[in-house]
Amino acid sequence: MNIKIILHIIGFLLLLTGFFMLTGILFSIYYGSNDIPALLISGLSTIIIGLIIWRATKEARYTEISKREGYLIVTAGWIIMSLFGAVPFMLHGAIPKFTNAFFETMSGFTTTGASILTDIESMPYGLLFWRSMTHWIGGMGIILLSIAILPILGIGGMQLYTAEVPGVTKDKLHPRVQETAKRLWGIYVILTGLEAILLLAGGMNLFDSLCHSFGTVATGGFSTKNASIAAYQSPFIEYVIIVFMILSGTNFTLHYHALHGKFNSYFKDDEFKFYFFFIVIVVVSIALYLIFSNSRAVESGFRDSAFSVISILSSTGFATVNYEAWAPFFSLAFLLLLLFGASTGSTSGGIKMLRHMVMFKNSLLELKRLIHPQAVITVKYNDKSIPHDVISKISAFVLLYLIIFAAGSALMAVLGLEIKSAMGAVAACLGNIGPGLGSTGPVSNYNEVPWIGKWVLSFIMLLGRLELYTVLIILSPSFWKS
Amino acid sequence: MNIKIILHIIGFLLLLTGFFMLTGILFSIYYGSNDIPALLISGLSTIIIGLIIWRATKEARYTEISKREGYLIVTAGWIIMSLFGAVPFMLHGAIPKFTNAFFETMSGFTTTGASILTDIESMPYGLLFWRSMTHWIGGMGIILLSIAILPILGIGGMQLYTAEVPGVTKDKLHPRVQETAKRLWGIYVILTGLEAILLLAGGMNLFDSLCHSFGTVATGGFSTKNASIAAYQSPFIEYVIIVFMILSGTNFTLHYHALHGKFNSYFKDDEFKFYFFFIVIVVVSIALYLIFSNSRAVESGFRDSAFSVISILSSTGFATVNYEAWAPFFSLAFLLLLLFGASTGSTSGGIKMLRHMVMFKNSLLELKRLIHPQAVITVKYNDKSIPHDVISKISAFVLLYLIIFAAGSALMAVLGLEIKSAMGAVAACLGNIGPGLGSTGPVSNYNEVPWIGKWVLSFIMLLGRLELYTVLIILSPSFWKS
Repeated sequence: MNIKIILHIIGFLLLLTGFFMLTGILFSIYYGSNDIPALLISGLSTIIIGLIIWRATKEARYTEISKREGYLIVTAGWIIMSLFGAVPFMLHGAIPKFTNAFFETMSGFTTTGASILTDIESMPYGLLFWRSMTHWIGGMGIILLSIAILPILGIGGMQLYTAEVPGVTKDKLHPRVQETAKRLWGIYVILTGLEAILLLAGGMNLFDSLCHSFGTVATGGFSTKNASIAAYQSPFIEYVIIVFMILSGTNFTLHYHALHGKFNSYFKDDEFKFYFFFIVIVVVSIALYLIFSNSRAVESGFRDSAFSVISILSSTGFATVNYEAWAPFFSLAFLLLLLFGASTGSTSGGIKMLRHMVMFKNSLLELKRLIHPQAVITVKYNDKSIPHDVISKISAFVLLYLIIFAAGSALMAVLGLEIKSAMGAVAACLGNIGPGLGSTGPVSNYNEVPWIGKWVLSFIMLLGRLELYTVLIILSPSFWKS
Repeated sequence: MNIKIILHIIGFLLLLTGFFMLTGILFSIYYGSNDIPALLISGLSTIIIGLIIWRATKEARYTEISKREGYLIVTAGWIIMSLFGAVPFMLHGAIPKFTNAFFETMSGFTTTGASILTDIESMPYGLLFWRSMTHWIGGMGIILLSIAILPILGIGGMQLYTAEVPGVTKDKLHPRVQETAKRLWGIYVILTGLEAILLLAGGMNLFDSLCHSFGTVATGGFSTKNASIAAYQSPFIEYVIIVFMILSGTNFTLHYHALHGKFNSYFKDDEFKFYFFFIVIVVVSIALYLIFSNSRAVESGFRDSAFSVISILSSTGFATVNYEAWAPFFSLAFLLLLLFGASTGSTSGGIKMLRHMVMFKNSLLELKRLIHPQAVITVKYNDKSIPHDVISKISAFVLLYLIIFAAGSALMAVLGLEIKSAMGAVAACLGNIGPGLGSTGPVSNYNEVPWIGKWVLSFIMLLGRLELYTVLIILSPSFWKS
């Protein structure tokens, strides 16, 4: 284990974190909010500490990173950035308790969007901007992770995704991966900019439009309003966010192809088709229920259904309505939606559509295999057969995900949450969505969760964000042997 | 498709059903209950109809049964037996509605034990005996199914079980399978007899001891008392039933080996070890909670924990206490237990320990595979490596099981059950356990479920009992082609 290269990269990440922390000061100055000292002190000290670590380890600069070091960098990186990122909130006093500040920052960097804040609008502007910025940084990290690290590690069938991305091989970090990362980041920035402009056009001010764009494109979900997107009472804003949530839950490589004129790449991709038609079916079903059973107007019924469903499926977590109030069974329907997630290669969390699709196809094909036992019937993804060992990897991932969901829910129930809230909170944090159900639902927040529960959920957010194994591997004894 | 051979076997099953129906009359006579005409008429007409069908198709007698015919015989057999089995209840008027009578009989034959009866003790003795007898017949069917049919079909990894049973090959029905079936039925009868004697010794009358033995050994769960086993207020009876529930949830082949002196065969079998230690851990954990947190006496706390946990895990469903009242989080804990099931080759239902064990090992081994990507790391069962395509089959089964659980729960919630009861009812019916949670929980019954819901649950019981694919395959269009 080469500790130096790990520290070198973490130093660099802290440098970036500190720099981004300072950006909020622009809004603090403009709005005259009292968080300038907190942001300035924590931003500068993060930069200085990062710089010291980075410089002190610079001879490691050209070292090749092994897989084991890769796991450590990713997990430690997310934790250390959350520790430093929590400082401004504590220093200012807006979130005085360490547990709460860490929860909020981890929720930001993992693009979860679960919040302990009971009065968001009383927060100073600079801190609110930093809070939304943690989403945006987290989203950038996820893009890099999913093209550069996960395919090499081959976690949970990410080899399949690999085949589709130029420059990514499962053997080692190809030089072209840097190029690919820059391209995808370019798309990330373009999406953020476009959405911000449209939200400005919809009547948001610059501050809100930037914060909500960060929250959307990173599929995070922190809002600057207590009532989340409901505060704007604007169908236009809701439609803009609906569209960008769908786009942000799409494999960014497909956007890249589309930008280069290949628009049909979307519907050539099996995962996108599955993702898209799944959304259409669920949104239309729920909209029909709202229109016919709850006597809602067609447009607003459709919009509420689309916003809520897409917010959950893309793992964003913005809210416009309390969907649990539509009818009792919507608690269960949304609990199930919390277990999906959007596309691989996007900023979304959760099990993700590719894995659901493969497992679902495999379960159905088993029928054919039983009828024709002699035939070789394999699951196909984009016309290529998926080997059995990849199916086994994907099922290992999905089952482990469900085991963690079940065990986490049981733990939260022991800590005193009622069954629905416990399951909702764990599903929402593990899937990096944000709001769960009941006492942690869309019209509530995580403030009342006992402090041990907040640490458990912080860990669960990290687990979910880093595709379970990246974190668990570090906790396994055989990782530290040899 | 050779319809004649299908009818021939179903005719024979009806003959048996009619004969067993008549046995209840002995108790009707002894107790002077008013159900003799109902049982006599339905028993005799079932025998006559069975005889006619059987005789009319006797030239098919020596036809070899194809796999496709096998699927149809099993599924149609269970449905037709439930239709005929429901007749005495309706004819007598004890369960006047067809929906309820069919639900109760399907619940019996699938060894589920979910009941719509609100006052069991007001039922005439002959009908109650027939009700418990449906469990016992169902259990016999399951034993035959799991040695003769499922391994040949290779559903959900049942090939693994195959390797352990003499005379069972995955290619075709070996002549020795008849011998094996007789041996295992012998054990089934011995277990039933032993338990009945012990229950008699514990103070039950002959009628109750037989009915409860049928319910235990078939892992069914119908009781003759409104309060189930709690009615007897006898720790001895509870311990007897605890032991026989564990034995009935064990692979019967292991009992066969033990009867021939190989007692160590239990702890040589990976599935039994997993099953046994899982029970020990859960029972002890809950007992400790009851003793320390609920201030229960050591013996009764342990006994209540053991009875409830083993009743659920073995998929029996007898009740002595309302475990949901211990603490709010026990609803969730027992919901999770409802998704387990006991051993393959037993009369229990659900996903079963073998599949849980394989999936769990596979998820954990993935950590090792990620650390040592070059090494070939396979899941082992009884020292043999499990090939990836069997893992893929097992995961297809487990995922399909969970999809049906989720979809069924959503459907029950739409029909008006609250989230906990909906999930509990579907988990309990799919796993052939019986009592679920809340309004379908251990101190309640299925009477209040809307009638559509009762049909849905009847279908779910059948699905679970026949390992999903046996039923689903018949609904797939490609089954009927060619």
